[in-house]
Amino acid sequence: MSRRRLKLRRVRRRSPPGAPPGTLIADPQAGPSRVRVVGYGPDRIESADIVRAAQLDDWIGAWPVLWVDVEGLADVDLIQAIARLFQLHDLALEDVINTHQRAKVEDYVDHLFLVTRAIGNGELAATEQVTLFLGRDFVLTFHETGGWNLDRVRERLARSQSVIRRAGPDHLAYAVLDTVVDGYFPLLEALGESIEALEEHAVADDDPQIVGRVHSIKHELLLLRRAVWPQREMLNALIRDRFEYIGEPVRVYLRDCYDHCVQLMDTIETYRDVASGLMELHLASVSNRMNETMKVLTVIATIFIPLSVITGIYGMNFDTGISPWNQPELHWYLGYPFALGLMLAVAVVMLWYFRRKGWIGRPRRPPPAG
Amino acid sequence: MSRRRLKLRRVRRRSPPGAPPGTLIADPQAGPSRVRVVGYGPDRIESADIVRAAQLDDWIGAWPVLWVDVEGLADVDLIQAIARLFQLHDLALEDVINTHQRAKVEDYVDHLFLVTRAIGNGELAATEQVTLFLGRDFVLTFHETGGWNLDRVRERLARSQSVIRRAGPDHLAYAVLDTVVDGYFPLLEALGESIEALEEHAVADDDPQIVGRVHSIKHELLLLRRAVWPQREMLNALIRDRFEYIGEPVRVYLRDCYDHCVQLMDTIETYRDVASGLMELHLASVSNRMNETMKVLTVIATIFIPLSVITGIYGMNFDTGISPWNQPELHWYLGYPFALGLMLAVAVVMLWYFRRKGWIGRPRRPPPAG
Amino acid sequence: MSRRRLKLRRVRRRSPPGAPPGTLIADPQAGPSRVRVVGYGPDRIESADIVRAAQLDDWIGAWPVLWVDVEGLADVDLIQAIARLFQLHDLALEDVINTHQRAKVEDYVDHLFLVTRAIGNGELAATEQVTLFLGRDFVLTFHETGGWNLDRVRERLARSQSVIRRAGPDHLAYAVLDTVVDGYFPLLEALGESIEALEEHAVADDDPQIVGRVHSIKHELLLLRRAVWPQREMLNALIRDRFEYIGEPVRVYLRDCYDHCVQLMDTIETYRDVASGLMELHLASVSNRMNETMKVLTVIATIFIPLSVITGIYGMNFDTGISPWNQPELHWYLGYPFALGLMLAVAVVMLWYFRRKGWIGRPRRPPPAG
Amino acid sequence: MSRRRLKLRRVRRRSPPGAPPGTLIADPQAGPSRVRVVGYGPDRIESADIVRAAQLDDWIGAWPVLWVDVEGLADVDLIQAIARLFQLHDLALEDVINTHQRAKVEDYVDHLFLVTRAIGNGELAATEQVTLFLGRDFVLTFHETGGWNLDRVRERLARSQSVIRRAGPDHLAYAVLDTVVDGYFPLLEALGESIEALEEHAVADDDPQIVGRVHSIKHELLLLRRAVWPQREMLNALIRDRFEYIGEPVRVYLRDCYDHCVQLMDTIETYRDVASGLMELHLASVSNRMNETMKVLTVIATIFIPLSVITGIYGMNFDTGISPWNQPELHWYLGYPFALGLMLAVAVVMLWYFRRKGWIGRPRRPPPAG
Amino acid sequence: MSRRRLKLRRVRRRSPPGAPPGTLIADPQAGPSRVRVVGYGPDRIESADIVRAAQLDDWIGAWPVLWVDVEGLADVDLIQAIARLFQLHDLALEDVINTHQRAKVEDYVDHLFLVTRAIGNGELAATEQVTLFLGRDFVLTFHETGGWNLDRVRERLARSQSVIRRAGPDHLAYAVLDTVVDGYFPLLEALGESIEALEEHAVADDDPQIVGRVHSIKHELLLLRRAVWPQREMLNALIRDRFEYIGEPVRVYLRDCYDHCVQLMDTIETYRDVASGLMELHLASVSNRMNETMKVLTVIATIFIPLSVITGIYGMNFDTGISPWNQPELHWYLGYPFALGLMLAVAVVMLWYFRRKGWIGRPRRPPPAG
Repeated sequence: MSRRRLKLRRVRRRSPPGAPPGTLIADPQAGPSRVRVVGYGPDRIESADIVRAAQLDDWIGAWPVLWVDVEGLADVDLIQAIARLFQLHDLALEDVINTHQRAKVEDYVDHLFLVTRAIGNGELAATEQVTLFLGRDFVLTFHETGGWNLDRVRERLARSQSVIRRAGPDHLAYAVLDTVVDGYFPLLEALGESIEALEEHAVADDDPQIVGRVHSIKHELLLLRRAVWPQREMLNALIRDRFEYIGEPVRVYLRDCYDHCVQLMDTIETYRDVASGLMELHLASVSNRMNETMKVLTVIATIFIPLSVITGIYGMNFDTGISPWNQPELHWYLGYPFALGLMLAVAVVMLWYFRRKGWIGRPRRPPPAG
Repeated sequence: MSRRRLKLRRVRRRSPPGAPPGTLIADPQAGPSRVRVVGYGPDRIESADIVRAAQLDDWIGAWPVLWVDVEGLADVDLIQAIARLFQLHDLALEDVINTHQRAKVEDYVDHLFLVTRAIGNGELAATEQVTLFLGRDFVLTFHETGGWNLDRVRERLARSQSVIRRAGPDHLAYAVLDTVVDGYFPLLEALGESIEALEEHAVADDDPQIVGRVHSIKHELLLLRRAVWPQREMLNALIRDRFEYIGEPVRVYLRDCYDHCVQLMDTIETYRDVASGLMELHLASVSNRMNETMKVLTVIATIFIPLSVITGIYGMNFDTGISPWNQPELHWYLGYPFALGLMLAVAVVMLWYFRRKGWIGRPRRPPPAG
Repeated sequence: MSRRRLKLRRVRRRSPPGAPPGTLIADPQAGPSRVRVVGYGPDRIESADIVRAAQLDDWIGAWPVLWVDVEGLADVDLIQAIARLFQLHDLALEDVINTHQRAKVEDYVDHLFLVTRAIGNGELAATEQVTLFLGRDFVLTFHETGGWNLDRVRERLARSQSVIRRAGPDHLAYAVLDTVVDGYFPLLEALGESIEALEEHAVADDDPQIVGRVHSIKHELLLLRRAVWPQREMLNALIRDRFEYIGEPVRVYLRDCYDHCVQLMDTIETYRDVASGLMELHLASVSNRMNETMKVLTVIATIFIPLSVITGIYGMNFDTGISPWNQPELHWYLGYPFALGLMLAVAVVMLWYFRRKGWIGRPRRPPPAG
Repeated sequence: MSRRRLKLRRVRRRSPPGAPPGTLIADPQAGPSRVRVVGYGPDRIESADIVRAAQLDDWIGAWPVLWVDVEGLADVDLIQAIARLFQLHDLALEDVINTHQRAKVEDYVDHLFLVTRAIGNGELAATEQVTLFLGRDFVLTFHETGGWNLDRVRERLARSQSVIRRAGPDHLAYAVLDTVVDGYFPLLEALGESIEALEEHAVADDDPQIVGRVHSIKHELLLLRRAVWPQREMLNALIRDRFEYIGEPVRVYLRDCYDHCVQLMDTIETYRDVASGLMELHLASVSNRMNETMKVLTVIATIFIPLSVITGIYGMNFDTGISPWNQPELHWYLGYPFALGLMLAVAVVMLWYFRRKGWIGRPRRPPPAG
Repeated sequence: MSRRRLKLRRVRRRSPPGAPPGTLIADPQAGPSRVRVVGYGPDRIESADIVRAAQLDDWIGAWPVLWVDVEGLADVDLIQAIARLFQLHDLALEDVINTHQRAKVEDYVDHLFLVTRAIGNGELAATEQVTLFLGRDFVLTFHETGGWNLDRVRERLARSQSVIRRAGPDHLAYAVLDTVVDGYFPLLEALGESIEALEEHAVADDDPQIVGRVHSIKHELLLLRRAVWPQREMLNALIRDRFEYIGEPVRVYLRDCYDHCVQLMDTIETYRDVASGLMELHLASVSNRMNETMKVLTVIATIFIPLSVITGIYGMNFDTGISPWNQPELHWYLGYPFALGLMLAVAVVMLWYFRRKGWIGRPRRPPPAG
């Protein structure tokens, strides 16, 4: 499991060190490419799947907003051909293919380039890179698999009376970003439920797996934080810097999206603190219980060892005939009951002493209700 | 208990990921709505409960200041109707309904939108979201239940000679924010008293519940911090940025309110540090006492085990008739007293040695008075 | 003691939540008020105690600098009357009475309002709030008790050739602030001496009180830090912002005062780090010594338990007449010396083994001199 | 090993304290110098090795871009002669020779001076300092050994159609920086694999070496962080400040290089957190297992010690003829089976009690799946 | 030792709280004053020791650069007389005498005032305050003892062809600062060597002194950090702010000096992290070894205690004549060998079980090579 988690965002660059920038090598594990084109305006909408870049020629410039959505990044040639049509920068294209980027925004002369990371399939393990180019009349989106997709956005586009249909490409870009950010909430909620469930066990239970569970949750929160933090920065930059292709009305929507990111970060940080406190609480509880156990066990042993010495004394083999000093108690009429009584007395005194010292079963003053 | 605490501010958004923004779905647990309208000016004041938005038509524009206070957010339709009357932005309205927002201020063209969180019923578990719209001649407030309410503000409005009656809607907004911030002080004071009470137990007491209590206080401080921090930022923004609807005189009052928030944060941070130190102190004390106990118990066992060997030696069954070397001491005249004396001597020497080593009851040099 | 410390700066606001700002309610524990007036200029100086605000009428405007020093805040009516004479803002006055403010500076139209905290009687427990109003030709100071007072400033004023007599009210304000800041140094030095004294005990001593002492010092440093930090900010604001009532020459002096605050903070932070390191060092030392003790005790027990088994074997009651296999060693001529020798041999071998393993008294390589 | 790691970046300055700046003393361990010159333009390229600075006279000014690459810093005289030809500042030259600098950029009047650190041979232990001077028509690079080299850049220069051939010296400088930054990725990936591999062992394994391994990885990450952090700052400065010798097109490439640095830092920080969590998890697991072991062992001892006392009682040597009270059980018909049964019963009751208390083999409720 | 370290920078101000600023009281431990004057220009240089301030009259204004170096601060009157000649500000002079200042720069109208701290005698314990006044044609330096001195600067001045002779007073000031900063490197290197030496012992050695050594190194790093940090800020201010008396060429040199400070801080921080890791590693190692030891000892005891019970059973004194059930095994032909065999079997089974459980000598899987 850990293996899967850590592989999440490998640091490997596909091209070897020293290679010229812009070298495109497909990830051998990249999914097959599927390209979906949507052209729309307030009045009409049309969509199609294409397999060659040339098919786009009829679409470009023919629609108020043209959206090309590439799912699966295996077909590097096709992607490169599309890039040439829209005059995308080589370095941006390299970032599209190399799916280990942090979220960022870059302003090229004739388009804006956004990188984000989305949660696919509701599992953190399936973080996907989603990249987006926003131009005057087009939006290009690239994502790794169909596990995370934009079907809901397409549904909203299909409704002719929706806000998005009457707005420009910047609103479509916002819709994509909003879908990305919203995707984190179910995962975070699941983590919150796990923490709650663990919290009930942390104090009462010794199960050694609890430590591993809390560790694993902290690990996932760490990765989530690492994914969300740069998205927050990116959205902040989108709002703060006056990018040419983002209109004033959309900026209000982006601020809403930014607020969600802030809330995500806020919750992640709180959960991390709670998880740390939980670990601390659990370890203290376990250690406390362990100490109590050891103390009681040691008390038992400590009481019986002197008794053992007493029995040993009575078991000595002195020649009692030689001297009246040699173990006369063996010949007492009540010697045996006395010996047993002595042992009982020693045990009781020790128990009483240990109890008075508070080493066993001390009645406690109740602490305040807190 | 923990369940309640963590649920405090769930991260769930009501609308599914990818849904268009501005979709309003009432929280199934939202309380029933009650709308109270107050119109006032320096000379006169009038108030009423309304059930339909249309009833507001007569009020709007007819008063220097119009205050609509909505308690309980179940009636989404009514809220939406009111929103339309005052031309509130869809995204702001979504934040009103979705009661898991962080405190923030947003500047819409014709009104200012504030989100804050208040303490209801003096318990942290009942944090409520309070939202406020401030326009040229109106204030709208929305809060979740009647557990937290604005009755004191209404009382102040009722007094014709009060400052608030002669001031504009910005002063009313300040009065609401001040009520929100002041509500935190009793809770914080209660936490401070809990910490003090625990501090007396932390050193002297082994009660395993203390760890849980301190943990629980730290948890509440964490949530408090998370609630107060953005409010401080929000108030800072209100003072710093020159918003159109906030006049210069009110800014002085807001600065006072901001100071209270700073003081809250300051106290929370101090309490967190104190609670952490308390945990550390308690664990060190418990561990110290445990170690002392174990040491004494082990010393007892360690003294008696060699004695046990001595009795064992005297209990051997050698054929003393065969050889003068075989346990002649069993036939000594004072063999038994000698044996007991030997055991006593061994015990005394060990005790003396352990004491000299400082393993038991060492007389200490008193440390400095600190 | 802890109770006293924590009460130091309660968070309670005197007025109930929702009350209008500016409501003045005297602290029930406030000391009786004493008002001392000093009027001075380069040439002459006059001073008097007053009991009614009206007595100030003759003083106002009659002196280059008029200083009204109010000690003890019980007489709210008198304070309010004075405030009205100097046209102080209601909110500022509320902060004067409510003695739980953080240090701050506020710029009202016709006076500057400063809040600071001073150390009274050389004990942290007696932190007092000192507030100061600086106007064109007057300085008002308010402090809680006579435990902290401004007698030294009065002495300097009394000397006709002193710098302060020839300067304006801003220099007097500086003198007050300087007295406040300088008052922290003796306390900090005392804490430094406590830390040094504890450092000698931390390694060599097991006294369980050491943990409490270090904790208590850390607590006091925490409170000191909390008191000094905002004062540094306040002084920084005084230097940085160009306030109307503070002249350029006094700014140089304030910078010196600011430097002292920075030095205070710097020393507090260093002491906190040292105290934390001390705690860590002490706990490691105690744990180390405890472990050594337990190891030696366990070694002793471990050596004697096998010996006990050997004596047990020789103490078996087999019928040696039945078979030559049954404990023939009991009939050996040197059986008993052999048995004792065997036990000695076992003990020696175990000791040798434990020593070789380094579990007892291993001769150590000396570590580097560090 | 640790020795090698720490020596990595000694703080020693070659010249004694108080010596005038700009004193050049070769590091006694510096490798022999090799100087390679490359002159190129879009159309032609020429390269040669030189041994005297005078040989450069023909090259300077004769090429669009002149690149002098000095490998090995032993020949201080030659380096000084080259520096004089290009009018490099004395302080910059001192930094070239003294190979313990942090990455930085400095703007001299007629050239830009960059210091970076590269990973040689894929091992952190071989961090090398790479310095670069960028002028109007030249680039000078200095690095410590051939372990890290610029052969890949030379290969790209050799290809006449490459971007770098048609660009100016700023693009060459970028190519060098990009090679430096890319060199960190394989090392980081190796560390990531080590962490993954350790993660599998951390919970299940007690090997005391694991602590050392994690410590060692944290140490390397610390050094990596220390090397990468200033490079990020340096690249940021290169992008942000408008340096004369860096054209707008290259700035886009530098931003890409900066992104890689950010990604490096991001990964390093994540790995550090993961490694810390791993250490914590491992220590908790080891301590947990140790505690379980000690508990079981102590339980065994605690059960047998009372049995030992029972056998001791039956082994007492009372004179049973004197009194019917003296150990009549020794004469019972079923005395021995009863004794054994008693011991068994005691053992069973204790086992049952310990089990009920959860001290051994308690069946656990499974914790939530996390 | 700790006493010496902590006294390093006492916080005491010489003058009592409330005293007017600028009161000069010599430190009772201040060394005797020695005043050395050097006047120089590109062509000539002259130097002398003076004992009265009046002797300076002939020097002032007669040289391009006049340098007065005061070593030892006991003679407050002389220092005050010199201060009057150069019109130094009272507050600055107070800082000169009171040798517990943080490094800082202050801009007075006709001179710049710098405070730094130097390492005297290569020991941290001898940190000295060095203050410097830089005017249009003079430099005044004050330092505490001759343990730290400026002889090397004087040597450079003596060489007629040196850069410093041809430059202004700002270059002399730089030379002093550079000497101060360079003085830290040998100390830091010594600390680095101590850490390396300790690192070898941290894992393999149990010496309880190691904890103290690491603590002591951390303490020294803490004090170093506290001394260097403000110097870095001061140098940064010197470079950033355009002070009148510092020319552009010297700014380049100061940047170099600032870089050294940054490198110092960087190394200090790294060493602190390494020392913390070392402490953690050492404690984990010691605890690990201790646990292993305790486990083996406990295993030995746990194996022998049941054997002890067996021997006890065979040592019971049942009347075997009364019943065939009473210890018939005592009369078996091979009873004794059987008993020994039983004990051996029990021991072997327990050993096997403990081994299988991994409680002793478990063969480990080797962890990855890290």
